Amino acid sequence: MQAIASHERVAIDLGDRSYDIVIGAGLLDKPEAFEGLPQASDAVIVTNEAVGPLYAQRLTTTLQTRYRHVHTVTLPDGEAYKTLSTLNSIFDALLSQGVDRRTTLFALGGGVVGDMTGFAAACYMRGVPYVQVPTTLLAQVDSSVGGKTAVNHPLGKNMIGVFNQPVRVVADLSTLESLPQRELIAGLAEVIKYGPIADEAFLDWIEAHIHDLLGRDVNALAYAIKRSCEIKADVVGQDERESGLRAILNFGHTFGHAIEAGLGYGRWLHGEAVGCGMVMAADLSASLGTLSPQAAQRLRNLVQRAGLPVVGPTLGTPRYLELMRLDKKAHAGEIRFVLLDGLGSAVVRPASDELVAAVVEANTA
Amino acid sequence: MQAIASHERVAIDLGDRSYDIVIGAGLLDKPEAFEGLPQASDAVIVTNEAVGPLYAQRLTTTLQTRYRHVHTVTLPDGEAYKTLSTLNSIFDALLSQGVDRRTTLFALGGGVVGDMTGFAAACYMRGVPYVQVPTTLLAQVDSSVGGKTAVNHPLGKNMIGVFNQPVRVVADLSTLESLPQRELIAGLAEVIKYGPIADEAFLDWIEAHIHDLLGRDVNALAYAIKRSCEIKADVVGQDERESGLRAILNFGHTFGHAIEAGLGYGRWLHGEAVGCGMVMAADLSASLGTLSPQAAQRLRNLVQRAGLPVVGPTLGTPRYLELMRLDKKAHAGEIRFVLLDGLGSAVVRPASDELVAAVVEANTA
Repeated sequence: MQAIASHERVAIDLGDRSYDIVIGAGLLDKPEAFEGLPQASDAVIVTNEAVGPLYAQRLTTTLQTRYRHVHTVTLPDGEAYKTLSTLNSIFDALLSQGVDRRTTLFALGGGVVGDMTGFAAACYMRGVPYVQVPTTLLAQVDSSVGGKTAVNHPLGKNMIGVFNQPVRVVADLSTLESLPQRELIAGLAEVIKYGPIADEAFLDWIEAHIHDLLGRDVNALAYAIKRSCEIKADVVGQDERESGLRAILNFGHTFGHAIEAGLGYGRWLHGEAVGCGMVMAADLSASLGTLSPQAAQRLRNLVQRAGLPVVGPTLGTPRYLELMRLDKKAHAGEIRFVLLDGLGSAVVRPASDELVAAVVEANTA
Repeated sequence: MQAIASHERVAIDLGDRSYDIVIGAGLLDKPEAFEGLPQASDAVIVTNEAVGPLYAQRLTTTLQTRYRHVHTVTLPDGEAYKTLSTLNSIFDALLSQGVDRRTTLFALGGGVVGDMTGFAAACYMRGVPYVQVPTTLLAQVDSSVGGKTAVNHPLGKNMIGVFNQPVRVVADLSTLESLPQRELIAGLAEVIKYGPIADEAFLDWIEAHIHDLLGRDVNALAYAIKRSCEIKADVVGQDERESGLRAILNFGHTFGHAIEAGLGYGRWLHGEAVGCGMVMAADLSASLGTLSPQAAQRLRNLVQRAGLPVVGPTLGTPRYLELMRLDKKAHAGEIRFVLLDGLGSAVVRPASDELVAAVVEANTA
């Protein structure tokens, strides 16, 4: 592993919606990380009660070099608040502050803040630009990249949202220093994901460096983030609106969403549910014969070494099936799964309720 | 004026978002009006309590020739319900009925139903297609075409929404038979609008046929709708996202929105507010010297002959200015107006508070 330069850029190629992901330490304080953004008179930082006190003032100072007014909107913290009602509170704040269409929003926080800010930016006065400034590992490697925005609905996660690409992603590695270990681990679930679906060599690398990652070695984190973003950029560049390929990024998410919805959002972190969901999806792949049992076991071991759960909560198998039928990939009641076709390659296909039920039963407490 | 064929098509050219507007009598019952739409297993008709009982069953019967399941969601009737909360009730219904991403929504009703259905279609599972089936004159000539969707916010009309083009517009002239006269008249405001902003010959035609239009002569209505859609298609084709030219379609709307918001949505119909707003905007144009007083008077006479209000409600001039400063065309607190540069040509420019205040005072009770 090489030490990285002061910052790196990963380009995401989407025609007139292309943008850069800038990755580096201390970027919050560097005006150059924000150079070249669309002209605007106002900037609005959308953050939450946990992240705002740590970083909003630093970002404000940096943005004041570019924008006449820099406002802040602070949301409550947590997946439980990723709702249409919280979204509306962003609109209330923007309209109360009287900001117009020449405004850029900045999502300063994790995936929840990013998802809601991107959705709000799509809808405020029918669209203003936004910048992702992710402060969690999960957001830096996954949710801040690719333009998926959404809020949850009591009947399903991320059911209400739009595709809306940011104009830039600024991933400041230094912000990970303040991340609780549980959230760092949850982010590792999405890092691990990129190996089995797209790059077995990256899976090897993660296995070799899992202790460095858990110990927050800055070079290890920088490489993991960069490689994750490269894989995601490649997939999203080929299929922005998930008409096919992009669905592979949801490896582990069909089971994972059922866990999150079944327990109530926020009980397990998203990454924890995805970690456990990947174990289940690998098992289902093994049941269908597209993955060797040894490879499924290898993935389970890595998920466990990362400190992620490998045993799902007891919701009852019928409840798992019911929740998965609401998955956005389902068609006419048939659940479709992202499965592994060997390590490093993923496919989307349906599976019978019987096989899925057996996998759920084998992998829950 | 010529009699029209059984139906006419106006193409709206937006690259891969292009679509047709089909205009004719009795189209609700004609499966051919819906041919060529995207494949889907489910159709969901979104309508309201006033329109649904009249037409939902007929549209259902027609759509059953194409879709396995045809559902209906019925909203309360009126601009007062064009809110994020009503939008959420559409999501509740879609998720409760378990419809997936292979679903097409049909907006059966006026502008409120169309705006909310188009917005819901953009957001449901990050986007499903939708068809506009406008049943009011206003929706047929204006709001169903061009992909502007929105809901209102207490601090401003249409503040929250997205650009989302329908995959077709099916304007059944027969549905206008059930339209209350007040709503027909409100729709005429948007028909009249197209003359002064884009086509003086069309203004001449409307003046010559205002009695036929008020008397619901089907050939007169058909021509007015077709010509209005042609002008709108031309403008939207040049500037889909209102970075410039498209704003001229908002002639009369800056004053009009202030009237609607100041009185509370629903007190005046949107078209009534626009009718009165056009009189004010023409007066402002005359004050600025871009329109002759005679031309402004000519427009006022036509608005009055259509049965639309030409005197605004007394909100107090400061309140008018305050509400207009929230207009989406405003930049950094400066209100920008669509003004006439002679009849048949429009420009967008700011005007001083003093001039605007004088116009408001001259045109309110």
